Amino acid sequence: MSAGSRTTILGLIGDTSVIDEEMLESLEFVESVKRIQEPYKNANRKFHPKDTVIDVGGVKIGGGNFAVIAGPCSVESKEQLCTVAEAVKASGAGLMRGGAFKPRTSPYAFQGLRGDGIELLLEAKKETGLPIVTEIMDISHLPLFENVDVIQVGARNMQNFELLKQLGKTDKPVLLKRGLANTLQELLMSAEYIMAGGNEKVILCERGIRTFETATRNTLDLSAVPLLKSMTHLPIIVDPSHATGIARLVKPMAVAATAAGADGLIIEVHNDPPHAACDGAQSLTPEAFDELMKSVGKIRNCLEEG
Amino acid sequence: MSAGSRTTILGLIGDTSVIDEEMLESLEFVESVKRIQEPYKNANRKFHPKDTVIDVGGVKIGGGNFAVIAGPCSVESKEQLCTVAEAVKASGAGLMRGGAFKPRTSPYAFQGLRGDGIELLLEAKKETGLPIVTEIMDISHLPLFENVDVIQVGARNMQNFELLKQLGKTDKPVLLKRGLANTLQELLMSAEYIMAGGNEKVILCERGIRTFETATRNTLDLSAVPLLKSMTHLPIIVDPSHATGIARLVKPMAVAATAAGADGLIIEVHNDPPHAACDGAQSLTPEAFDELMKSVGKIRNCLEEG
Amino acid sequence: MSAGSRTTILGLIGDTSVIDEEMLESLEFVESVKRIQEPYKNANRKFHPKDTVIDVGGVKIGGGNFAVIAGPCSVESKEQLCTVAEAVKASGAGLMRGGAFKPRTSPYAFQGLRGDGIELLLEAKKETGLPIVTEIMDISHLPLFENVDVIQVGARNMQNFELLKQLGKTDKPVLLKRGLANTLQELLMSAEYIMAGGNEKVILCERGIRTFETATRNTLDLSAVPLLKSMTHLPIIVDPSHATGIARLVKPMAVAATAAGADGLIIEVHNDPPHAACDGAQSLTPEAFDELMKSVGKIRNCLEEG
Amino acid sequence: MSAGSRTTILGLIGDTSVIDEEMLESLEFVESVKRIQEPYKNANRKFHPKDTVIDVGGVKIGGGNFAVIAGPCSVESKEQLCTVAEAVKASGAGLMRGGAFKPRTSPYAFQGLRGDGIELLLEAKKETGLPIVTEIMDISHLPLFENVDVIQVGARNMQNFELLKQLGKTDKPVLLKRGLANTLQELLMSAEYIMAGGNEKVILCERGIRTFETATRNTLDLSAVPLLKSMTHLPIIVDPSHATGIARLVKPMAVAATAAGADGLIIEVHNDPPHAACDGAQSLTPEAFDELMKSVGKIRNCLEEG
Repeated sequence: MSAGSRTTILGLIGDTSVIDEEMLESLEFVESVKRIQEPYKNANRKFHPKDTVIDVGGVKIGGGNFAVIAGPCSVESKEQLCTVAEAVKASGAGLMRGGAFKPRTSPYAFQGLRGDGIELLLEAKKETGLPIVTEIMDISHLPLFENVDVIQVGARNMQNFELLKQLGKTDKPVLLKRGLANTLQELLMSAEYIMAGGNEKVILCERGIRTFETATRNTLDLSAVPLLKSMTHLPIIVDPSHATGIARLVKPMAVAATAAGADGLIIEVHNDPPHAACDGAQSLTPEAFDELMKSVGKIRNCLEEG
Repeated sequence: MSAGSRTTILGLIGDTSVIDEEMLESLEFVESVKRIQEPYKNANRKFHPKDTVIDVGGVKIGGGNFAVIAGPCSVESKEQLCTVAEAVKASGAGLMRGGAFKPRTSPYAFQGLRGDGIELLLEAKKETGLPIVTEIMDISHLPLFENVDVIQVGARNMQNFELLKQLGKTDKPVLLKRGLANTLQELLMSAEYIMAGGNEKVILCERGIRTFETATRNTLDLSAVPLLKSMTHLPIIVDPSHATGIARLVKPMAVAATAAGADGLIIEVHNDPPHAACDGAQSLTPEAFDELMKSVGKIRNCLEEG
Repeated sequence: MSAGSRTTILGLIGDTSVIDEEMLESLEFVESVKRIQEPYKNANRKFHPKDTVIDVGGVKIGGGNFAVIAGPCSVESKEQLCTVAEAVKASGAGLMRGGAFKPRTSPYAFQGLRGDGIELLLEAKKETGLPIVTEIMDISHLPLFENVDVIQVGARNMQNFELLKQLGKTDKPVLLKRGLANTLQELLMSAEYIMAGGNEKVILCERGIRTFETATRNTLDLSAVPLLKSMTHLPIIVDPSHATGIARLVKPMAVAATAAGADGLIIEVHNDPPHAACDGAQSLTPEAFDELMKSVGKIRNCLEEG
Repeated sequence: MSAGSRTTILGLIGDTSVIDEEMLESLEFVESVKRIQEPYKNANRKFHPKDTVIDVGGVKIGGGNFAVIAGPCSVESKEQLCTVAEAVKASGAGLMRGGAFKPRTSPYAFQGLRGDGIELLLEAKKETGLPIVTEIMDISHLPLFENVDVIQVGARNMQNFELLKQLGKTDKPVLLKRGLANTLQELLMSAEYIMAGGNEKVILCERGIRTFETATRNTLDLSAVPLLKSMTHLPIIVDPSHATGIARLVKPMAVAATAAGADGLIIEVHNDPPHAACDGAQSLTPEAFDELMKSVGKIRNCLEEG
């Protein structure tokens, strides 16, 4: 306790992660409450200094293992999926992405093939061998994700706490995207929701935040990568496609994210971007993706030598 | 079509709400796409010039009818609910609020009494006669809301599209809160999700957006009130408690919201703020709420005369 | 001093406004520094509980005195100024505004009549008797402001510290606008720059901050009004014209600002908005201004009775 | 002209950079104005496809030439400057930075050695041969900058248009930092102010924008680098020190900026960070800077091979 002439500072000692700051702040004689200890435990690097490595069907993410997830924004057909999957696999992608359930601002926009889309992803997985990553939008769809390799929680659902709790009860790796208006601490608190349920396989994803700048869809916050690495032991990947919304910015931002120390990337690739069912403006062709992978590979080599 | 020396402008004519701007933008020869017609129809005042009035057990909201929803942040006990409900009713509140399912940033914070909380709300409704407003966090809980009068969709779920779709199939009034990083157009698109399902009873709620300013919990955007009134026929209420997060700012912001033309308010009131299970710092005592209602009443009278 | 198992809290006692937090934070053994005492003194209500009242040629602002400043965005001609000034005076405005030096994003846009504009303002003042408020953009223009009644510092110059220092050496009232990305504390620190030089006549102005929302030019932060009133004794006025950028939102936001407790308003009025040299889209006609003043007057009466 | 049932689109053809959108928008029959042509000319890559290369005493920036500017936040003594300058030169920096005039939020914080600081910088330049970069805060100080090599305009002065105009009349390279709440287009419009005066030597600098995230001082927007490169021919450098405000994030962000295609970096280096007169928390030691330069050099080699 330190007593000044106008203010007295009280220090609370011990495990304070269960203390509700707001309740303290509402006491009449308390002017403000400053938290010293982080409110997350399972995700906290202080208590788990070693990097978490997540194994998805043999593909490792984290702890020095770099993984690239690539594929179309939304699943359209088996042919489309297999064409893209073979191409991205040849360029070095380790996992395939594809949206079956699509969160769209408008109820009149294409909502995804939903259950059928997941079927197509599983067929493509059989043919190409690439593990699949796809987004869940509601708990009730969980049974459809039984054979999915990584369940993605989109930015708009980062604080869908009921969904996070249910995913905490599964043993599937969860790709948790940062919300458009969420701080890094809130991202870790959402990871904590999943981990508190017993599922420690959380992959964090920086995908841009919403700011006043309208030249890009969102503002990619790459400082999140080294900062999260100091806060948590969980792997951190970057999504330059949704962050920028502009195909020609995807490669430079993928390369920058790699240089910043990301554990992987998630990239939208479409065999025919102008005819993509969604997000064509930010999708790469397989050729552009191949170039991106070559540049990323060089940066990775360069970092490893250093 | 207008052809300049470097650029040609093409105008699309007809119903363009179903057109995907992104797809057009991804075409190689298109530099940019500018939408002229709004992408919402059911919520659009242009097509429905008359104000929507929503009737909740005899309490009307919209079209000149002003309604105040008040009650504790979270349901704690029947006694607490009834004490607060009787007090706010005496001061002129038309509906009672109380959180049974509580979205909390931390998995270690109090998560609400959940199903039991809804039971307590229904008991309090029986005693006081006040219709109840309470938040839903997941579709699977919908059966518990059968006797709830207004279902609230919280800011974090404003773009939980699967939830919105299901609420569109009910006939219950939905109180839809603006997300922390969502534009007014996106708020209307989320209302459109509910209305497209057949449920036209949507009450919009401005509750502050997230900005760089840290002196208040959020930044209350009161210009949203007159702007939404020009864009849509749906009623718009304001939540100064969550917007500011500071009890002493609630009254001035409630009064300002009323003056700006809001159709109602939603206010946190607790009989013992320092011992509230959550959000004590922003809760009013019943006495402070009574003062607020008197000021709001004066402003209402003054606006009606004018 | 409070010693926990992992962290020790040190409390600094005494006048800490001169302590540099960053320097402390850079010490290796310091994890973080939390300031308890506000870093502003002259502007702090704790040390000066009584409202400051600023007298401008007999028109008082602050301490219960409500003042309205009105006029065109930019000075165009003496005729224009006098027409508008007579009209706004008849409606109850106490001061006239008009831009002589105009900050414009583009070097190709109209930059104001500059020195000649100030001459025209002074002539209009002679004819109408209304004290004048006009913006300074550079210290070197200060001699031109000798007969100006209130010197305005625009949002873009809120942290032009050299300008603030010079204004601190004058004895003219300064209307200090909040910057587009500045916190309330930073606004008070800029007021402190002026006051530290000996000039205590600072009028604060909330005029909207920049957020992700694009439906309005800026987001008017009305919670700034009651919050600033608790932090400082200086008067606070609101500029709904620049905040919204949309003429039809000016009246509802002016009324709301009044209801929130503002000490005054600054409103753009033009006799012919579509032909205004700038900001026509947000300017009111004299008729619309008259209506606004009637509504504002009613709210003022209503607040005073309460 | 395209006429729909509710809306008619008019396309303006020719040089529209001088057209005031706001004036058009204020016309009663105009619903909205969408600009197709960029409002900047001199800075526009469309009209000047070739990269601008700026030569500062033999050190080139832009067009494939990568330059690093390093030095202390503020000038403290000749000894300090020379120690740091020799160290950063040995590590490969091409220019030396040091603040003589310091913009500080508080009037009570150290304001810089001002004129004396510039003298010290010039002495250090003599000893080390490194060209110097230092910030101007007011036009009236311009004579003191006669022998300065690059004049820096800080973020808070990015829209100090009178200052920009005067710098447009000099022939000195100007390092123009992006404002905390300014879009890339506004940054280019400010460059246009300088260029319209005849001075084409503008170096743009991304240094972070203000967002809701408080974990870093600002949010570094690295997508600005490739985006500005497509919009303009001017060189773009990055300031990871001010963007993050945290020393341990400077190296990863410097490396990422290099990978994103930046033309250079500006880095704070201090021989004794904990005793720096300002910004100690974000300053690197000369040893840490040397490591940074090695990593940056590897990335540069890697990019050049590619």
